[in-house]
Amino acid sequence: MSENSSAAILIIGNEILSGRTQDVNVQFIARRLADLGIKLQEVRVIPDVPERIIGAVNELRAAYDELFTTGGIGPTHDDITSECIAAAFGVPWEHHAETFTMMQARLGENFNPARQRMATMPRGARPIHNSASLAPGFSIGNVHVMAGVPRIMQAMFLALEPELPRGAPILMRTVYGIGVQEGAIAAGLETIQRYYPALDLGSYPFRHGEGWGVAIVAKGTDTAAILAAIEQASELIAAQGVAPIQGEPETAVK
Amino acid sequence: MSENSSAAILIIGNEILSGRTQDVNVQFIARRLADLGIKLQEVRVIPDVPERIIGAVNELRAAYDELFTTGGIGPTHDDITSECIAAAFGVPWEHHAETFTMMQARLGENFNPARQRMATMPRGARPIHNSASLAPGFSIGNVHVMAGVPRIMQAMFLALEPELPRGAPILMRTVYGIGVQEGAIAAGLETIQRYYPALDLGSYPFRHGEGWGVAIVAKGTDTAAILAAIEQASELIAAQGVAPIQGEPETAVK
Repeated sequence: MSENSSAAILIIGNEILSGRTQDVNVQFIARRLADLGIKLQEVRVIPDVPERIIGAVNELRAAYDELFTTGGIGPTHDDITSECIAAAFGVPWEHHAETFTMMQARLGENFNPARQRMATMPRGARPIHNSASLAPGFSIGNVHVMAGVPRIMQAMFLALEPELPRGAPILMRTVYGIGVQEGAIAAGLETIQRYYPALDLGSYPFRHGEGWGVAIVAKGTDTAAILAAIEQASELIAAQGVAPIQGEPETAVK
Repeated sequence: MSENSSAAILIIGNEILSGRTQDVNVQFIARRLADLGIKLQEVRVIPDVPERIIGAVNELRAAYDELFTTGGIGPTHDDITSECIAAAFGVPWEHHAETFTMMQARLGENFNPARQRMATMPRGARPIHNSASLAPGFSIGNVHVMAGVPRIMQAMFLALEPELPRGAPILMRTVYGIGVQEGAIAAGLETIQRYYPALDLGSYPFRHGEGWGVAIVAKGTDTAAILAAIEQASELIAAQGVAPIQGEPETAVK
């Protein structure tokens, strides 16, 4: 039924699990993927532990069409993603000749062993050159290995986009009901969902002043169905005596 | 070696995977867990699909001491977490008598079938009453089932804390080097990490103006080792001709 490829994100890094850092990479990648027409089906966050990385990479690259990893490709001792990807694929981890030569030319005597690690990749890797960092990310098979620093990750993802599969863009449209309680419209929403089984119809309460509101989101690839479902959801909200507020037509990317 | 329990978080919800919503629950839970002395080892985000929920719950509750889920316990058709938890445990999903009576008394004629779902739990569940919502979360075995709305999730987590195991608090301390490049101090950091194998020593570059800085983070339960490792990392930074900036002593909770 779906012409959309599937994808997962693997976030490698103790800094998310410790609560030190607020992840922002998932939302960026999720929105870009929706625009490309790729369905994000899973996110995992794991620590910098070799067997955890190897296991998760092999599980997720088998389960989904594309796997994006973030984190662990810098020059320090805790940057172990690259050699773990090599182990996951069962290939040598070796100097990538083109990248090694380029970084050596640019860094000169500063191209020390730590930085040489960033020119070391699984055999067969394709570098992801980008505008934000001299050291590239890389793709191998259906796995795309990117930095964890958001600015660098974003540049790598944008550089990678032309290589990714495309499907029908995944569109979202939202209608808001301020002061409407989910429990009052749940039966009506279920009826709408049954009528449009190809859509994902979601209901999300949110805080509004001292009270609550609800956002009804219709998501899918069929614009006419989305518009019709949102119209029906608006009528549900209106029946509660509340003026529905429809969001602008939007893809997941704004 | 560790007296710290382990934990995972399972985020159930299409709104994170679509990029519509920026998750903030992971960071809140991660910081509270560090303070309680519980090691967060994994986070997963999955869609509202029964077999995905059941599979992930059973995998994660077996792999870790505690499992926290967020999302999918409201009154609408896409709120399917509760019945999936019952299926994962192989127990009936049934009215929770005490909760049913309490909600009926409070809601009167508004206690419709959709809201009655929120008083329906796996047999054996222990409700998590809280200050933010009439409908409780619940625990069953080592699985703690909470709302996805941050305000409600936080109230549920705080209500749950007295029931959770405690270990030695997981402390973090950070030193910053503005303008220092990771690649220049990588070898020195690796030496420090080898000297303190019980600590997690992390290196995190960050954007600073038009340039970069690096944060060195030492994390663990041994305060003396953390202080000594941060002192050595400060000397590494100073050797680059940069004045190190040590953060205040901090637990992961501030």
